[in-house]
Amino acid sequence: MKKTSKESVKIIPLGGLEQIGLNITAFEYEDSIIVVDCGLAFPDEEMLGIDLVIPDITYLKENASKVKGLVITHGHEDHIGAIPYALKELNMPIYATKLTMGLIENKLKEHGLLKTTRRKVIKHGQSINLGCFRIEFIKTNHSISDAAALAIYSPSGIIVHTGDFKIDYTPVFGDAIDLGRFAELGKKGVLALMCDSTNVEREGFTASERTVGRALSHIFDENKDHRIIVATFASNVDRVQQIINCAYNLGKKVIVEGRSMVNTISTAAELGYIQIPDNTLIDIEQMKNYPNEQLVLITTGSQGETMAALSRMANSTHRKVSIRPGDVIIFSSHPIPGNEKAVSKIMNELAKKGAKVIFQDTHVSGHACQEEIKLIYTLTKPQYSIPVHGEYRHLKRHKDLAVEMGIPKENVMILRSGDVLALSDEKAEVVDRVPASGIFVDGLGVGDVGNIVLRDRQHLSQNGLFIVVVTLDRYNNMLLAGPDIVSRGFIYMRESEDLIQEAKQVVTSTLERCQDRNITDWSRIKNMIRDDLGDFIWKRMKRRPMILPIIMEV
Amino acid sequence: MKKTSKESVKIIPLGGLEQIGLNITAFEYEDSIIVVDCGLAFPDEEMLGIDLVIPDITYLKENASKVKGLVITHGHEDHIGAIPYALKELNMPIYATKLTMGLIENKLKEHGLLKTTRRKVIKHGQSINLGCFRIEFIKTNHSISDAAALAIYSPSGIIVHTGDFKIDYTPVFGDAIDLGRFAELGKKGVLALMCDSTNVEREGFTASERTVGRALSHIFDENKDHRIIVATFASNVDRVQQIINCAYNLGKKVIVEGRSMVNTISTAAELGYIQIPDNTLIDIEQMKNYPNEQLVLITTGSQGETMAALSRMANSTHRKVSIRPGDVIIFSSHPIPGNEKAVSKIMNELAKKGAKVIFQDTHVSGHACQEEIKLIYTLTKPQYSIPVHGEYRHLKRHKDLAVEMGIPKENVMILRSGDVLALSDEKAEVVDRVPASGIFVDGLGVGDVGNIVLRDRQHLSQNGLFIVVVTLDRYNNMLLAGPDIVSRGFIYMRESEDLIQEAKQVVTSTLERCQDRNITDWSRIKNMIRDDLGDFIWKRMKRRPMILPIIMEV
Repeated sequence: MKKTSKESVKIIPLGGLEQIGLNITAFEYEDSIIVVDCGLAFPDEEMLGIDLVIPDITYLKENASKVKGLVITHGHEDHIGAIPYALKELNMPIYATKLTMGLIENKLKEHGLLKTTRRKVIKHGQSINLGCFRIEFIKTNHSISDAAALAIYSPSGIIVHTGDFKIDYTPVFGDAIDLGRFAELGKKGVLALMCDSTNVEREGFTASERTVGRALSHIFDENKDHRIIVATFASNVDRVQQIINCAYNLGKKVIVEGRSMVNTISTAAELGYIQIPDNTLIDIEQMKNYPNEQLVLITTGSQGETMAALSRMANSTHRKVSIRPGDVIIFSSHPIPGNEKAVSKIMNELAKKGAKVIFQDTHVSGHACQEEIKLIYTLTKPQYSIPVHGEYRHLKRHKDLAVEMGIPKENVMILRSGDVLALSDEKAEVVDRVPASGIFVDGLGVGDVGNIVLRDRQHLSQNGLFIVVVTLDRYNNMLLAGPDIVSRGFIYMRESEDLIQEAKQVVTSTLERCQDRNITDWSRIKNMIRDDLGDFIWKRMKRRPMILPIIMEV
Repeated sequence: MKKTSKESVKIIPLGGLEQIGLNITAFEYEDSIIVVDCGLAFPDEEMLGIDLVIPDITYLKENASKVKGLVITHGHEDHIGAIPYALKELNMPIYATKLTMGLIENKLKEHGLLKTTRRKVIKHGQSINLGCFRIEFIKTNHSISDAAALAIYSPSGIIVHTGDFKIDYTPVFGDAIDLGRFAELGKKGVLALMCDSTNVEREGFTASERTVGRALSHIFDENKDHRIIVATFASNVDRVQQIINCAYNLGKKVIVEGRSMVNTISTAAELGYIQIPDNTLIDIEQMKNYPNEQLVLITTGSQGETMAALSRMANSTHRKVSIRPGDVIIFSSHPIPGNEKAVSKIMNELAKKGAKVIFQDTHVSGHACQEEIKLIYTLTKPQYSIPVHGEYRHLKRHKDLAVEMGIPKENVMILRSGDVLALSDEKAEVVDRVPASGIFVDGLGVGDVGNIVLRDRQHLSQNGLFIVVVTLDRYNNMLLAGPDIVSRGFIYMRESEDLIQEAKQVVTSTLERCQDRNITDWSRIKNMIRDDLGDFIWKRMKRRPMILPIIMEV
């Protein structure tokens, strides 16, 4: 490792900064590229009808021969969700810890990619060589087991990437974060620290996952005569373990419900990340053989997702579970920004069915707060800081914190997705830009819905649609049929006969005007119809539906 | 007042329970009806394109001769916003405290209703007689000045309605809540307490508005060399007063920006609810004559509302204010559930422009927490409790709290909007239902957008639209022109020539099938086109656009 190389390593976030969720970063040095994480994002509310957003890997495809491998920090969707999409375009070997790999393999199976994908399970403390990079996996804590930080040894120096992390001195499963290794790296000299910014606005320390176990145990005790339903994140294996422990201690039976929950728990159990005492887990079909107060359901849907198990229970559309008066429903989660209303709606529905809803003190974050972040800075003493994982204001707040920690202001680099940062111990500079917008997935279509389509959906959603069809004589442009008007999402048509009649007259007189002036160009005629009808509707109703004139000729 | 009448008073919430925001409640006894509050709600995210939701006052119109007056507890939109709409359908005199009336009059002016509406300003402690009711206004505290609780004296007993309230022992303007009066009413005997449930899930006490002033003063001191922009609720006059005080103490000039902010502040200043020191307020046009660090802007938009002043500043579309690096922007507010993402987006935009965004410890709620609510129960000792102002789970939590406070379970009535509760000291019972769904306002249309239209908007927004037009011969149903296909919000058409061509073939063969089978009924033909094309698109793309077949005949 030559520490004073003038050659720069390039760091290229291909997503994950403006577009939260699409975590994917390329590290490039001469003929080697390694990729860290490959996540997907769920659509914003203005991305109407979009199912998923995946990263644009054009840059990687254009440099396919350089790409040595994909290194994954942990098994959350925003870090592994786009792997199948990426692999369909670019084959690369995957390196991850055991549980993370188990979750990735579930995805690969679904997409029929298991056989064609090289994979290697890496242990914490172990290193791999990929081209001119060496990557060491370092134990961290997070809201999913087996998370890793990465020490990326490049010829330009060591880059420490924390992944998503928190410091948990008393984790439920496995060891605490390997702070000693961070300290050793600090002694060796860290060129750059790329550190999680999610909770940088919060003071203090994130509480241990174990505190949730204590709170849950207390709630279970208080409600032991009721059926208890706990909604949480499918991926939070330690949380599920604690819920199972609470149930077991009270002699209750546990049912796991919701597809992703079932999948994750079975993978975690198979790999030894969760211990389920014998005779504790029962099948959902067996529920009817037990009295209510002996049952604990662990379910998906804590974010109010419409299709998840808890939503279906709340809306009486779940085929196997009906909410009953007296049920105690614990949200062991916190709404992700944007989901607050959906969560609140479900809580109301559950309450209306007579359930007791509990959501206080039943969750801790998986991300480091200010004091934890400061500790990582203190141990690693990086020359440069590159805040990652957060919205812009989090990155900016992180910059302030890094400066407080003694990093010179000009050494803190806030990158945009697509920036190519060239980094050496002499200089840090954004030298280029590569494509890095998210790509929309809608049904089977990947990338075929763009901004024009979304703008139309937006327009349609707010104002509805007004279609005008006329059939013209191909020889003299005389009106042969119509104008016919069809509207949707605009006004209830049966109650607006008058408006439709008047609108037809507006179009008829527009067409007459075209005839008089000898206007025969269809696009001009359409524009005139659109303008005249638009004015008419705006004056009458102060609304702007999408107006679609269609001309047929016979 | 006969306390033991067997005649019941009827309490009819016409909104405000499921439909938060539409606060309006009718109280009826024999030939007298009084109405308390008349608010509007802003649309949920699934109410696509809807501008406002107003209450359905059919029941009041049907009993117009009984309606003696409209009594208003305070000047927030969710309590006064629908008054102009209601008055256009039903003339009734309005009773409110001074500032509340000032804000109502602004609305009446806009709608040309000022001259035709009888109004009476009531002071705290004063009572009015309306039919067989007497209504006493009681001083409370809230996030707008001049809020009142109501003691409604009916022949069946006294009903205490808290309105929205908190207990502020050290309010910025005027007196603390008149706890003594609540106690006196308790001694007299309160039939029912209708108490604010908004914060019933929160333990403890809501902090005094004055604590925000201290926090702001501290932030102003720390940032006195910068231009400061404070976003807050236009209606929180005391908050604005404290911001002005902070600015004045540092010798800064204040600009007020945003239409509702300008209107509210000028009304409040006119009526003596806010004191602006001379030479402190300047016009926005004068800004350029002062150095940055001498300026404080108070603006609307703290909820991320797209059209509000702060949004326009963040998006560089404000004509008079550009965000500059170094600006300090304080959100003196907390996002209302559902607005979290919009607020976060604006914060990111502001941060990208180099502004420092502060939002911690800069707001207190205007609603009572558990200990405050308990205090009101302790003072009023009601026979019945009717939780108001909250979503269902708040009302239910409130019920638990009321039971804790010694109200028998069966005496706590959780009502739905439209329930007619008949109440006497012998019995409380829901005896009827009246119309109480919210009415949608879209542009100039009131009530012309219903569920079918919204369902269409929803469908269009998620999947877009596929229009098929064919012109048929009126004599033999032969295809004369088309099929033509127009799609919007579905896929970018220029890149999907193939799909369109195939879709045309699908429709052509459907029409041939109709010909072969002698199917001439248009609705059958349309259904067949819809089905065949729907299957084709689903198989190809796993999407379900709205398919609109249109048949013309010549």
